Amino acid sequence: LEVGATRVRAGFENALRTAVQTGRLRPQTRLPSTRALAVDLGIARNTVAEAYAQLVAEGWLTARTGSGTWVSDRVPGARPARRAGPTGPPRLRYDLTPGTPDISSFPRTVWAAAARRALAHAPSEAFGYGDERGGSTLRQELASYLARARGVRADPVNIVICAGFIEGLGIITRALKNRGATVVTIEEAGHRLHRDVIADAGMRIRTTPVDADGAHVDRLGDSGAVVLTPAHQFPYGVPLAPERRRAVVRWAAEQAAVVVEDDYDGEFRYDRQAIGALQTLGPDHVIYAGTVSKTLAPGVRLGWLVVPPRLVADVLAAKRVCGGPHGAIDQLTLAELIRSGAYDRHIRQRRLVYRRRREHLATSLRRRAPAVRISGMAAGLHAVLTLPAHLTEQAVVVKAATAGVAIAALGDHHHGRRRPGPAGVVVSYATPPDHDYSRAIARLCAALADLGC
Amino acid sequence: LEVGATRVRAGFENALRTAVQTGRLRPQTRLPSTRALAVDLGIARNTVAEAYAQLVAEGWLTARTGSGTWVSDRVPGARPARRAGPTGPPRLRYDLTPGTPDISSFPRTVWAAAARRALAHAPSEAFGYGDERGGSTLRQELASYLARARGVRADPVNIVICAGFIEGLGIITRALKNRGATVVTIEEAGHRLHRDVIADAGMRIRTTPVDADGAHVDRLGDSGAVVLTPAHQFPYGVPLAPERRRAVVRWAAEQAAVVVEDDYDGEFRYDRQAIGALQTLGPDHVIYAGTVSKTLAPGVRLGWLVVPPRLVADVLAAKRVCGGPHGAIDQLTLAELIRSGAYDRHIRQRRLVYRRRREHLATSLRRRAPAVRISGMAAGLHAVLTLPAHLTEQAVVVKAATAGVAIAALGDHHHGRRRPGPAGVVVSYATPPDHDYSRAIARLCAALADLGC
Repeated sequence: LEVGATRVRAGFENALRTAVQTGRLRPQTRLPSTRALAVDLGIARNTVAEAYAQLVAEGWLTARTGSGTWVSDRVPGARPARRAGPTGPPRLRYDLTPGTPDISSFPRTVWAAAARRALAHAPSEAFGYGDERGGSTLRQELASYLARARGVRADPVNIVICAGFIEGLGIITRALKNRGATVVTIEEAGHRLHRDVIADAGMRIRTTPVDADGAHVDRLGDSGAVVLTPAHQFPYGVPLAPERRRAVVRWAAEQAAVVVEDDYDGEFRYDRQAIGALQTLGPDHVIYAGTVSKTLAPGVRLGWLVVPPRLVADVLAAKRVCGGPHGAIDQLTLAELIRSGAYDRHIRQRRLVYRRRREHLATSLRRRAPAVRISGMAAGLHAVLTLPAHLTEQAVVVKAATAGVAIAALGDHHHGRRRPGPAGVVVSYATPPDHDYSRAIARLCAALADLGC
Repeated sequence: LEVGATRVRAGFENALRTAVQTGRLRPQTRLPSTRALAVDLGIARNTVAEAYAQLVAEGWLTARTGSGTWVSDRVPGARPARRAGPTGPPRLRYDLTPGTPDISSFPRTVWAAAARRALAHAPSEAFGYGDERGGSTLRQELASYLARARGVRADPVNIVICAGFIEGLGIITRALKNRGATVVTIEEAGHRLHRDVIADAGMRIRTTPVDADGAHVDRLGDSGAVVLTPAHQFPYGVPLAPERRRAVVRWAAEQAAVVVEDDYDGEFRYDRQAIGALQTLGPDHVIYAGTVSKTLAPGVRLGWLVVPPRLVADVLAAKRVCGGPHGAIDQLTLAELIRSGAYDRHIRQRRLVYRRRREHLATSLRRRAPAVRISGMAAGLHAVLTLPAHLTEQAVVVKAATAGVAIAALGDHHHGRRRPGPAGVVVSYATPPDHDYSRAIARLCAALADLGC
């Protein structure tokens, strides 16, 4: 091997290893043939074969005679899906996988100042075990924030503070199960962890298809709940159509079921079409779930549920056995951020930044990779790139990885088998930090251009 | 009724209502007869009867012909067990129920300063989804803190940060269940919520007796785990005897079972006998659980598990579906508190205060209520008062409530039926705040003296 080829092989091998380690290539995924991938990536077939062989030797891949190369099974939970810090696996230079805002923009000094003010003025009781719904100061601030920002109809006594949507979904599922529900319907595309959380609570899961009008809501049957992303379907990025919004609330009312509205990025909308919360249409049938994970940072681990009055007691009972009230200091601080106007200011500022980034991504793609179709970016922090017919999702993910750019395949965000449809990848424009953003997009576009987009 | 009697009745009625509302008198508790309670409390029998009648009318109590008066069943979870703020029920003036430190002493400015420093210096990744075990900075600080303060043998990679012991216990139970365990043994006396958490995770519960040497550990059989409070049994306050400590670790090693060490107040020990963590005897068989709930304040909701290496992956898998990593900002702040020495200083200062309070309680009781026997106060933040034979626990709890003082009956902290043994009450000397403490103890002692202690 000459030096250049060695470097290519090492780069490709590392990228592939990282993709497996971080779960971007999931266990039991079948890899493209060495020939096909070599053509797609524009590298020697031998380079691909040697990297495959090395990762088979390390146990990350499995070669099955006659049926190609597969990502190995690992013991479930044997390795955390995301790790950080010195013990984590190497990460790619540019992370454009969806789900995280620009964490380098977390308003540290604003937060610290709000914490200082909030701590100085809080009553002692704020530091006790406290109200299981969360502190009343935050619930009051949230009720008015949610009304003005998202049109949510919330009384502070019906708000339950939790550690973000994952904890909230676990609590909701347990509460509904304790009331006798046995089935939860989720959108066929979404976060895999949501499915795991619902299954762990002992509920059966059905999926409902997603199209250009959002999730189908006409065959929910006897589900106890349906979990939707009405403002901005994840990952497809479409809003739930008005007639479906009305229909799903009607279904919940008739069946005494619940719509769980996962409003994960509802604060970020860039076109003129205001998409308020679905909860407004049926506060007695919808549990609205919001979070600071996209507006501030996921590391804060703070979210809220707005719960129909008849369900509050059951939600609190489920919360009690999950760990009780949420950490008081973050609650006091967020309440002070909202009260002082700093939270709204931060969101407005971020919205401007993300709007610029989104335009940068769209412009770059149109120029450098015109064969890619962009969708889902009227709101939120990510776009879906539909690929030309000659490319597979995994080929594009691996090619981007060799360029140091992490993106997700649409198939990674499908529950069960993906229905036939054009291949696509999901690209976040929220990460990485500002100083890296142009370079990340340039690399992604170059990788796509190399593949003939 | 004359005015004086009206006031007595209103006071007694309010105290009784509050005791039911706050769960200190639990559903299905049989109340003493009006005659017996009137004699115990030194008030007119008619006053007791009228208060009972009023609470029956309000639904809090139920009168069953021929079998007395009972605390009504309520729909489980129909009302949060603890509420605070404007919507909560009236609380008694002096809260001496165990489980909460002096929350008025929470070091607000020290915390705010540490948060500011920590936020200024944290890498951006700290605000991302992060390592599921919790941030590496805090885990490193905790490893050295736990070694020096509690003798715990902890490698940062085996520490998992969680939202206090309740969340931790839920995670542990789920992890053990996923490994095939079906039974968890708990001490026969403890917090009822612990039992609820274990049951919610789908495990069967056995109890093991507690005596002056702590929990019996000779009949743990095929339990997958035993949950112990080895440093200071809750509520009895005895340490687990050395031979039992060795025996329980031996049992866990032989059965491939786990000891869960709930070290809820291990930082507070007042005699010369150092009681290190049980975990030291068998780091491969003990999950050590600690928290800032007693050292700082329960409202912070921050705790940690030190997990045997072979169990870390399962614990993290269970944690993932419970809500993932813990809030980053509290973690960064606690790490900075430990690093700067402020955490140790705060604990030393609190230890001095609690030692003084404890002596004040003991001296006052010896002088004003000599018939009461005090025990369990070599460590921690509460004492057990064994009552003279003529008194029931509920009579003392109700009498104290009429004096504005909330205390707990020993029976409130027993799982299932209490074994025969002298009646007793549990009194915290950690709450209320300093300026109220002498008055609270004086009132408690006067109430006990009135009852002939």
